[in-house]
Amino acid sequence: MSRQLRLGAFMRPTTIHTGAWRYPGAYPDANFNFAHLKRFAQTLERGRFDAFFMADHLAVLNMPLDALKHSHTVTSFEPLTLLPALAAVTERLGLIATASTTFDAPYHVARRFASLDHISGGRAGWNLVTTSNPDAALNFGLDEHVEHDERYRRAREFFDVVTGLWDSWADDAFIRDTETGTFFDPEKLHVLNYKSENFSVRGPLNIARPVQGWPVIVQAGSSEAGRQIAAETAEVVFTAQTLLADGKRFYADVKGRMEKLGRARDHMKILPAAFVVVGDTLEEALETRARLDTFVHYESGIASLSIALGHDVSGFDPDGPLPEIPETNASRTARQRVVEWAQRDGLTIRQLAQRIGGYSGLEMVGTAKMIADQMEQWLVEDGSDGFNVMFPYLPGGLDDFVEKVIPELQKRGLFRREYEGATLRENLGLPRPENRFFARVN
Amino acid sequence: MSRQLRLGAFMRPTTIHTGAWRYPGAYPDANFNFAHLKRFAQTLERGRFDAFFMADHLAVLNMPLDALKHSHTVTSFEPLTLLPALAAVTERLGLIATASTTFDAPYHVARRFASLDHISGGRAGWNLVTTSNPDAALNFGLDEHVEHDERYRRAREFFDVVTGLWDSWADDAFIRDTETGTFFDPEKLHVLNYKSENFSVRGPLNIARPVQGWPVIVQAGSSEAGRQIAAETAEVVFTAQTLLADGKRFYADVKGRMEKLGRARDHMKILPAAFVVVGDTLEEALETRARLDTFVHYESGIASLSIALGHDVSGFDPDGPLPEIPETNASRTARQRVVEWAQRDGLTIRQLAQRIGGYSGLEMVGTAKMIADQMEQWLVEDGSDGFNVMFPYLPGGLDDFVEKVIPELQKRGLFRREYEGATLRENLGLPRPENRFFARVN
Repeated sequence: MSRQLRLGAFMRPTTIHTGAWRYPGAYPDANFNFAHLKRFAQTLERGRFDAFFMADHLAVLNMPLDALKHSHTVTSFEPLTLLPALAAVTERLGLIATASTTFDAPYHVARRFASLDHISGGRAGWNLVTTSNPDAALNFGLDEHVEHDERYRRAREFFDVVTGLWDSWADDAFIRDTETGTFFDPEKLHVLNYKSENFSVRGPLNIARPVQGWPVIVQAGSSEAGRQIAAETAEVVFTAQTLLADGKRFYADVKGRMEKLGRARDHMKILPAAFVVVGDTLEEALETRARLDTFVHYESGIASLSIALGHDVSGFDPDGPLPEIPETNASRTARQRVVEWAQRDGLTIRQLAQRIGGYSGLEMVGTAKMIADQMEQWLVEDGSDGFNVMFPYLPGGLDDFVEKVIPELQKRGLFRREYEGATLRENLGLPRPENRFFARVN
Repeated sequence: MSRQLRLGAFMRPTTIHTGAWRYPGAYPDANFNFAHLKRFAQTLERGRFDAFFMADHLAVLNMPLDALKHSHTVTSFEPLTLLPALAAVTERLGLIATASTTFDAPYHVARRFASLDHISGGRAGWNLVTTSNPDAALNFGLDEHVEHDERYRRAREFFDVVTGLWDSWADDAFIRDTETGTFFDPEKLHVLNYKSENFSVRGPLNIARPVQGWPVIVQAGSSEAGRQIAAETAEVVFTAQTLLADGKRFYADVKGRMEKLGRARDHMKILPAAFVVVGDTLEEALETRARLDTFVHYESGIASLSIALGHDVSGFDPDGPLPEIPETNASRTARQRVVEWAQRDGLTIRQLAQRIGGYSGLEMVGTAKMIADQMEQWLVEDGSDGFNVMFPYLPGGLDDFVEKVIPELQKRGLFRREYEGATLRENLGLPRPENRFFARVN
């Protein structure tokens, strides 16, 4: 069998495109309606997706109200309360929740993911993030946000504490012998006693070892510190490379770091975000894509465009072309990409603003065959191990993907027809971690 | 219609009796098996229970390992991950989760309960507790536990911050006008900006106002500070009075405090814990009760008995009667109750240890008619507004209650045949809180 694509669905909890809720046939309240989310999760499972991946924010997005008021992602469910509910209405779909190491306690985080893993029969994943948003800090009693390196040091330790707590009990600690009345074997209980400058956590965890040993560890950092912590600890990496060449560089770098640390390359799946718009013809797909952007409010779009260019462009003629913009200290790559788009597709400032304001990362727009070609190329050329797919609008964009792209990938032998296993780990082909305190039982 | 009983099911997440898991026909792993819990919740809903009530601990129970190893409650699900999963498989049952104000952040707690309330369509309740367990403190970086009054001051403020965050958005803030692209009305968003010695929380919450306005506020404190905070804020009070006379005193005291604060007596339901063993005859019920105690391990029982008496009784003959015990500084009420039980029922030390080690609060043992009589008496004499029922073992004890006691209560007009409303508040007959920052929309 050829190498297999891994597909996560990046739901936040619905789609990332800021105009999606206005698209004809979309559910404007999808972001906050459990019945809809249940339907989406069940569709993903029918499509044999590896996982439902949920982002998180610990504050209302930091944006002027006049731009923010157009956003459907301003409020949404909390991931660790939504995913258990989705666990109860699905059977095989993985459930990856984002939880921050910056403003929470390791004991709480360890418990919640262990609990989700038991409830779902081994389908939990933890997207371990640090929180840089200064507005989030203000919701947790801090006037200043925590500095980058300090956040990463804390995150690395947080990981050690959480995984140590997950290992509190041997896998076979619970005997439940009704005859003798012995519920567990005290020899198979470990007290962590972790102490450092950042954390003092005694343990043990009051939850049995997770079904998967540990829930799958997911990360998204792309900085030097982020790549290193991923190489040390991550099993799935969510990335944002827009070009295959960049993807290949990132892939080689992080997998290389893993090997240096003695980890097998296969034990991490690198999954870039991909915004996928499928049509029966290329023209239909391009039309959907363009139409979607018309639903991005100009005020939101122009703010995003100004940020991307590092230059206030709100004074220019919305229906004219993008003039020469002086060099600024904005990211050159981002700036260059915007300028290239404007030239290639002959976009007006309004169209450019709406595109940037809607979504501006890697996108695949075309027929199922074209999309499968593109995905296959990334896989074959070691640009990624699969993708975190984002849908243009719900439910239509998701239904189209499952009905059109998935069968094409299956036909090529690139994607499963049935789930391989019962747990997220088994489906992703990841090993079950040994308990560091207790040898495996044979 | 006569005054109605309110019935919660006190699940932790199963039963409190420490011998329950060994009872013939019981599920030894019920405490940690989602399929079982789903069945229990659906049975409770069929019985028209008001709510599934889930306790919580932030540490492995503080008990010597030799006693602890017999306990089925040593590990269990985390409430705020279990209850969303149960929400997805039930339609009307209330879902009350315990969450501590001592070791968590108000922003997290506000989000999770708001999220549960949306997921469940308005069925969430928050059992607001303070955590005194010193072992819990050690899991959250504190070497000493937080002192009682300080815990209550923090809890009171925690409540203000959480409810303030729930009121971040007016009920009609989300317009979702696809035509104009306005998702919400910025005039209907309130930034809390709470600042005190204990908390600094900016807000707004990134979740829409809960379906119920606020999830139902539940409390269990019985100290002076606990009663006062309950009178100020609680809508359901979980109590542990064993005798009707004590129940009546507590009821009069707390409802009196409410009235002094200008709150209507009806806006709080006082529900003592009641351990209910039902049989087709009294003899059968008594036999079940006695048999259940035989499954309590002697080592656990004798430790609990020694604590209740304030005297180490582990050296006495297990099969002899309880000798005279010198006065100690243990609680006199608890001590006296134990001595009375021993005399009344002619119990040996072993039997007494197993009873105390199994469960030692208010119990109702008998036929459905006898149990209904007892419940009715508490209700009519203002000893309570109903009960938090605890089942002797699962699933049998729960099935018996729903099949035998519920119909008897319904026949007397004391308990609903159908749910009155869609939300927990509606079913409990509690008013929906006004948003303190936005006038109600008419």
